[in-house]
Amino acid sequence: MATALSTDLYEITMAAGYVAAGITGRASFELSVRSLPANRSYLIAAGLEPALEYLEDLAFTPAQIKYLRSLPALRNVPSEFFDETLPSLRFTGDVWAMPEGTPVFPHEPLIRVTAPLVEAQLVETTLLSTLSFQTSVASRAARIVDAADGRPVFEFGARRAHGTDAGLFAARGAYVGGCGGTSMVEAGYRYGVPLTGTMAHSWVMCFDTETEAYERYMDLYGSQAVLLIDTYDSATAVDRIARAGLRPGAVRIDSGDLLTESQSVRSRLNAVGLAETSIFVSGDLDETRIAGLVGADAPIDGFGVGNALSTVSDAPALGAVYKLVEIERKGEARPTLKLSHGKTTYPGRKQVWRFANSHGIYTHDVIHLADDEGSGEGHRLLDRVMVDGQRSRIAPMLNSVQTTTRAQLNRLPAALRDMQQGEQYPVHRSQNLERLMTELSDTLRGAGE
Amino acid sequence: MATALSTDLYEITMAAGYVAAGITGRASFELSVRSLPANRSYLIAAGLEPALEYLEDLAFTPAQIKYLRSLPALRNVPSEFFDETLPSLRFTGDVWAMPEGTPVFPHEPLIRVTAPLVEAQLVETTLLSTLSFQTSVASRAARIVDAADGRPVFEFGARRAHGTDAGLFAARGAYVGGCGGTSMVEAGYRYGVPLTGTMAHSWVMCFDTETEAYERYMDLYGSQAVLLIDTYDSATAVDRIARAGLRPGAVRIDSGDLLTESQSVRSRLNAVGLAETSIFVSGDLDETRIAGLVGADAPIDGFGVGNALSTVSDAPALGAVYKLVEIERKGEARPTLKLSHGKTTYPGRKQVWRFANSHGIYTHDVIHLADDEGSGEGHRLLDRVMVDGQRSRIAPMLNSVQTTTRAQLNRLPAALRDMQQGEQYPVHRSQNLERLMTELSDTLRGAGE
Repeated sequence: MATALSTDLYEITMAAGYVAAGITGRASFELSVRSLPANRSYLIAAGLEPALEYLEDLAFTPAQIKYLRSLPALRNVPSEFFDETLPSLRFTGDVWAMPEGTPVFPHEPLIRVTAPLVEAQLVETTLLSTLSFQTSVASRAARIVDAADGRPVFEFGARRAHGTDAGLFAARGAYVGGCGGTSMVEAGYRYGVPLTGTMAHSWVMCFDTETEAYERYMDLYGSQAVLLIDTYDSATAVDRIARAGLRPGAVRIDSGDLLTESQSVRSRLNAVGLAETSIFVSGDLDETRIAGLVGADAPIDGFGVGNALSTVSDAPALGAVYKLVEIERKGEARPTLKLSHGKTTYPGRKQVWRFANSHGIYTHDVIHLADDEGSGEGHRLLDRVMVDGQRSRIAPMLNSVQTTTRAQLNRLPAALRDMQQGEQYPVHRSQNLERLMTELSDTLRGAGE
Repeated sequence: MATALSTDLYEITMAAGYVAAGITGRASFELSVRSLPANRSYLIAAGLEPALEYLEDLAFTPAQIKYLRSLPALRNVPSEFFDETLPSLRFTGDVWAMPEGTPVFPHEPLIRVTAPLVEAQLVETTLLSTLSFQTSVASRAARIVDAADGRPVFEFGARRAHGTDAGLFAARGAYVGGCGGTSMVEAGYRYGVPLTGTMAHSWVMCFDTETEAYERYMDLYGSQAVLLIDTYDSATAVDRIARAGLRPGAVRIDSGDLLTESQSVRSRLNAVGLAETSIFVSGDLDETRIAGLVGADAPIDGFGVGNALSTVSDAPALGAVYKLVEIERKGEARPTLKLSHGKTTYPGRKQVWRFANSHGIYTHDVIHLADDEGSGEGHRLLDRVMVDGQRSRIAPMLNSVQTTTRAQLNRLPAALRDMQQGEQYPVHRSQNLERLMTELSDTLRGAGE
């Protein structure tokens, strides 16, 4: 998991620079997504609790500080930084965030951090990687679960994930997005994600006969066993199961054309008196393939999804940014922005207001300055979740987050969940925010003159 | 980093099943890639040392065992498994592997594990995620470094990576593949990857004027400072740098059209007497964009690459598999295979032999059974790297691995490094291996009859 060194070198060089320049006021940064990836019309916020855990635990060890002191890049940094700043550094700030499971759109802050500048700056890298990846996974999981149209989907992608944290976070994000569970044991241990599993081809290959492999597995796991039937030949495997008098809860098919394979396996199971045995499939599945199988009425009872979830294969990087929006200088809070080509940011601490019609369906959002009141019947999306570096409310159980996700998805306009259409949800900015942007842009283009 | 629970549930259910069924002989698994991702004509092996570190440290804690015992899925597992097998479980096997930095092709084992079945099975998930991801990153880094044609490339993608391990592994893999360094501090601390960094827009935004921001940074970092010039307007920023009498080692441009921006910044720098100041660029770069900039003679001295490396954005999942190839049963080693549609595996422990022409350029590989002698002048690619669970040789320094990578790439046929062509490197299988495959397939189709 993340340590204090899970950061970019420039966060450290800037931190040392802020201290040397005496810029120690509180700063506010907001994390948001610049644009939706292809094939997405909404995102589902996820990853908040692991991010808050990182903030609560942030501290440099003596060995880490010794290493930093040895870096040529930091050779001119005053020793006070290594002797005083870093050893005592903890995250002491406030955090506002969208609850996990909230649908979120570009430019809306998922999280806002207000803390002494050095702290708020240092945590950029890990906040971005933690929140972006889980949000990406939860968002894709929501689409995949929609495509499965009521059949359970399980996340099986740890082996394809980008290392151990990635497998763990993928399992967590997929569960937030609606998956029934994961194969990744650590995600059960650490986050309470329900665990599920079948058997690998190696199990079948270790025994003298396929029949013996199935018998020995069912000795131990009984009817909850999911027998993998495609090691040699699926049809033969079903016959062997029947001939041995086994009644597995399910069989799994992991290769071939899953539509025709599932149809022939279903007929064969029914023919041998195993009509109660379900069919579970896996193998390079994503929302498009699942929608195809479901649309063709494939006799499939559940799906195992790997890299489509654990690497978010169609959109592996979310263009999230963490931008300074306000800085306290000489006792005064000043909104900030940048004007870089195509990467302009809006100044000031913000709050997102969401509005619904009389049926409870969301109609649009408005991004306001945080201290302004939103007009009308909307509600605020960002809650205060951390005060002075401590979580200020009990973390919700992950299964209730999953329930929230489903309830929130049901309030989105139907066109947003249609996988073919790419309808855009309306997100406006308040007049006050637009006015501040205009005023400040004019001033800052002249900065330094 | 990986723990004993960084595995799929079925590895645990199978492990318990092997113990219950008394299948405790030694098994050999091989990890290989099924096919090359699009846009690749070779892969660079990477990730071995972190994988071996995981194997050496593998152990279940009492809390982890208590958790496993509580799982409904394991309720019928005999308590001996929790009381004896898991507490004493360590990895005691032998490992053969391609050295990091070796070019590798589909079907060639990157690593072969021979260990008591339970151990060899349990480590599947983490070996796959550790080796696949770093191999993916190193392979893309090699292409990107080729595209930059001598200009240094730095990996800056930790914030886009899929969590902390992913950022760390991306930095390591990118360095193996030829990058000059990384921004990810933990990768310097843990693996000795050279660190590099510039400044963020937030640095510029925190000061009253852009000029003051640059002056304060150079106070601390002198001419090694890389000043980010696109927060407000690049041309104005260069003028401010000159007017303040600053002489930064480099400036960075992070937005806009990098060709025209770099050209106008270069002229402006030269015009104000800063001809020695280099130009460094970043912002959604990959091998195609870099090749375009280099081809257009853009006055760029170095590249920072983010998600193209840290998420391997064009091929985020490598189709690697870890397959049982031999199992000891009743005192006898038996080769194994699976016949699943499109996912057939070859039986037996293997060794890869690589052959070169008289100029030292590699011509083809032959996959032999491990105990067979390769014919002719080829050399073996898999070395023994672990004996009885302990590393059997000193791990090479990572900078020497990078040197190996470059030297190996220079021995590949030139067409393989041409980014447009997709030439295929010849990989053959020995007659003995093909013969074993044929014999065993016939036998196994009848398994269980």
